[in-house]
Amino acid sequence: METTGKTVNELPSWNNGEAKTRILNFVKNATDSASKSYIPPAERIAVFDNDGTLWNEAPMLFQLNFTFDRIKNLAPQHPEWKTQQPFKAILENDRETMKKFSHKELGLLLAASHTGISPEEFKAAATQWFDTAQHPVYKRLYTKCVYQPQLELLNYLRENGFKNYIVSGGGVDFMRAFAEKTYGIPPEQIIGTSSKTKLETKAGKAVLEKTPELQSFDDRAEKVSNINLHIGRRPVLACGNSDGDLNMLQYTAGSATPNLVILIHHDDSEREMAYEKHPVMGELKEGLTEAKARNWILVSMKNDWKKVFPE
Amino acid sequence: METTGKTVNELPSWNNGEAKTRILNFVKNATDSASKSYIPPAERIAVFDNDGTLWNEAPMLFQLNFTFDRIKNLAPQHPEWKTQQPFKAILENDRETMKKFSHKELGLLLAASHTGISPEEFKAAATQWFDTAQHPVYKRLYTKCVYQPQLELLNYLRENGFKNYIVSGGGVDFMRAFAEKTYGIPPEQIIGTSSKTKLETKAGKAVLEKTPELQSFDDRAEKVSNINLHIGRRPVLACGNSDGDLNMLQYTAGSATPNLVILIHHDDSEREMAYEKHPVMGELKEGLTEAKARNWILVSMKNDWKKVFPE
Repeated sequence: METTGKTVNELPSWNNGEAKTRILNFVKNATDSASKSYIPPAERIAVFDNDGTLWNEAPMLFQLNFTFDRIKNLAPQHPEWKTQQPFKAILENDRETMKKFSHKELGLLLAASHTGISPEEFKAAATQWFDTAQHPVYKRLYTKCVYQPQLELLNYLRENGFKNYIVSGGGVDFMRAFAEKTYGIPPEQIIGTSSKTKLETKAGKAVLEKTPELQSFDDRAEKVSNINLHIGRRPVLACGNSDGDLNMLQYTAGSATPNLVILIHHDDSEREMAYEKHPVMGELKEGLTEAKARNWILVSMKNDWKKVFPE
Repeated sequence: METTGKTVNELPSWNNGEAKTRILNFVKNATDSASKSYIPPAERIAVFDNDGTLWNEAPMLFQLNFTFDRIKNLAPQHPEWKTQQPFKAILENDRETMKKFSHKELGLLLAASHTGISPEEFKAAATQWFDTAQHPVYKRLYTKCVYQPQLELLNYLRENGFKNYIVSGGGVDFMRAFAEKTYGIPPEQIIGTSSKTKLETKAGKAVLEKTPELQSFDDRAEKVSNINLHIGRRPVLACGNSDGDLNMLQYTAGSATPNLVILIHHDDSEREMAYEKHPVMGELKEGLTEAKARNWILVSMKNDWKKVFPE
């Protein structure tokens, strides 16, 4: 018989309460072959959104900060950017114009900063940024703006034979640059928004290049299609924080096997931010209604978490 | 220090010779942390083509046999097929017409037999077929038409910490129906040709449906793009059998880390078939040239394998 979940020091940064109790009970039953709610190891698939679920997303998506920093770094090779919007606004740190960037302008910035290079080259650039850039509000590395209780949850699940996946609207190559070191989630367990790649031969070697053509915008229903495409099994645990995650949560809840659905509620104005609407990521509205109607775990960051960020 | 490859009874169905020796040496070095050719466990990604590499593909792709059988099974719900090509030819077992099916006709048959249902429903249909259908030439279950030496290679790699992936032109849902049981390769390690899915709500539940719209035809350069999309690391071992695999083999060979590239040559007219051109899968021509020029392992099924199929 398998070892069931450890009983000492589980989820130490979670306050005692319904959320913590239900998570612990779910995992203990899932790993207890005598339980009616036992889940065979191969089926222990857990999916997590990233922005706002595993790390901070407000006031500004980290990937946009990375994009702006990279535009600045690349500017010497593009003298025309000094007079061209949307680049000009970034180089002049013109916050008012930057706040009003259209989707089309953001697309131009993403293309200029994320494509035309190989995934390996992109990873090197992103890794360097993660190793050095400071979050403007929290004054620490971006990889230290992750949620400590969630790091513990990921680890607790992994120790109990779950395979953790990220299924996020964030760029897949951007997430792959930090997630293995920070979350213990390897590249092959990361699903995200992606652009197409093309294979070229350079100096007799096969080289991939990232192109600006969208492959998948990993949000809402597309999260479910991508789970099917990449994983090929229905998850037994799903965790998100916005209506963009709702389809993934519903899909997980719709399984005939035991499952657990967790919705993170940003209600902590003191230690982080209290909001139900994000300028880029959209709302959390339907999700709150469904969570209550379906008895999903609704995590109050304020009440359920002892701390938000790691020390 | 890690345990290095076992020395007893490794790859028993492989004859002693260069192919076997090079595979064993590669794995022993990859798992020996004192070796210059050591590969950390997280990077031990191995990719295998399926048709003609892990199981038989000639004279007829198994997935086409499945398609024809499924059309026959679905025929009672489609009385119009009795008079409509390409369906009519299948229902009448008109081999001459079937041999001449165009790509467009094959597309119609695949759509009729593979879409309009959920991935779970498709998996159930395919599983039933794998459990019962007999190969017309080899007179055994299709899952017994796999290559015994390759089963041993997959197992040997897995025991040495490699993560085996299938990267094949075959349908991803078709392969997922048998590969876990037959090869020990779970659904999330299978990359294949895929159609798009759409999310629908049926009786209040989120349900995916397979549509006829192509998502990815996993052949040639697209194999490399899909490896990047799904795995996000360059493989250290690649194995294929046709020019459709060439890009994947080149990409693996182009890594700066130690790597091993294996090309299976169908030269055994007695126990299987000798061919370098397949009616559906195309040729093996450039691959043979490259294998010789680059010193890849060229496996002679006739000389390197003690047996082809399991007992």
